[in-house]
Amino acid sequence: MAEHDTPGRPGRWRSGAESKQRILDTARELFGEHGYGATTVRAIAKAAGVDPAMVFYFFGTKQDLFGAAVDMSGAVPPAIASIFTGGLDTIGERIVRTLVENLDKSGRTPLVMLTRSAPTDARSETLLREFIDREITDRLAALLGTPDATVRAAMVNVQILGLTVARYIMRIEPIASASVDELVERFGPLVQYCLTGPPAA
Amino acid sequence: MAEHDTPGRPGRWRSGAESKQRILDTARELFGEHGYGATTVRAIAKAAGVDPAMVFYFFGTKQDLFGAAVDMSGAVPPAIASIFTGGLDTIGERIVRTLVENLDKSGRTPLVMLTRSAPTDARSETLLREFIDREITDRLAALLGTPDATVRAAMVNVQILGLTVARYIMRIEPIASASVDELVERFGPLVQYCLTGPPAA
Repeated sequence: MAEHDTPGRPGRWRSGAESKQRILDTARELFGEHGYGATTVRAIAKAAGVDPAMVFYFFGTKQDLFGAAVDMSGAVPPAIASIFTGGLDTIGERIVRTLVENLDKSGRTPLVMLTRSAPTDARSETLLREFIDREITDRLAALLGTPDATVRAAMVNVQILGLTVARYIMRIEPIASASVDELVERFGPLVQYCLTGPPAA
Repeated sequence: MAEHDTPGRPGRWRSGAESKQRILDTARELFGEHGYGATTVRAIAKAAGVDPAMVFYFFGTKQDLFGAAVDMSGAVPPAIASIFTGGLDTIGERIVRTLVENLDKSGRTPLVMLTRSAPTDARSETLLREFIDREITDRLAALLGTPDATVRAAMVNVQILGLTVARYIMRIEPIASASVDELVERFGPLVQYCLTGPPAA
């Protein structure tokens, strides 16, 4: 960016804010049109008339840019990162802990993510689901690398959905009032079992 | 009943139909007022002014009467019976098979059973949930008889909810288009694991 701006020149920051907004608008447009997976940061930069480095400077990763474009909670990208930091043998516990800790402190109802009847914006819901598919489910499957990795990753989705509905929507006891640690203790091994098979008895 | 009716008398069948309807109306009223668990067949018979034997004659079990009162699919009571017929060591498979086979052929959306926002009748939804709690969850817990039986039964609820949302509402692949047998093969052991712990590795 330094090549486009002269330090100290009055118009510099206004110009930066304008570029940032233009990148965001372009990102919304292209993600909405082509989906999350098929849209590259390079394509967004090109359409917005900026250098790809400027996109990374303002928004970090493609994940982060997407999050900004669909008004996703800023907690989501670091939460995803925490799932994939650490060994495969303890990933079940990390998935459950990350999910429950984040939903517990989120004020938003998770119902909007669960139904096909999008209450406000069907397109951003579809986008959000594609994002989750790519950034969590597909990465889980890739991490496993077994022939049935896709089914196993989908089984983890079932755990996440079931836990979310039981705790936050239907408020089934004792799931609804269990502590995070209790849920990690119970569902961590179950999610692990979905991914890597039965533990030693 | 024979003591109240003289065979061949013209009014007999009309009287039977009237009694049946009165039992049903009374059952709706009492189940609605006191809940499923706290309402006995004896109390319904008394309030309807008939012999308890007549209730059983017209409606079978309390489960069946409840089903008729809340307009439940006639497939539910036999489905529940099939879960509890057979050994505890294979109950996971039976739960998954019964759930999926019945929801697959049901035309109704299961969403109404899953959300707290009752679209039509909040009271019958609450009743239905209490029925499921008592006739499935509590019976599962009683069958286990372990100190943590309640949590284990709730974990089965999480499997059922997750599977239902994934297959019928969000239509997550490959769960949505999997065959019943594939789902039984994958989720049967998982439900079994919720109830009786890890299988021998």
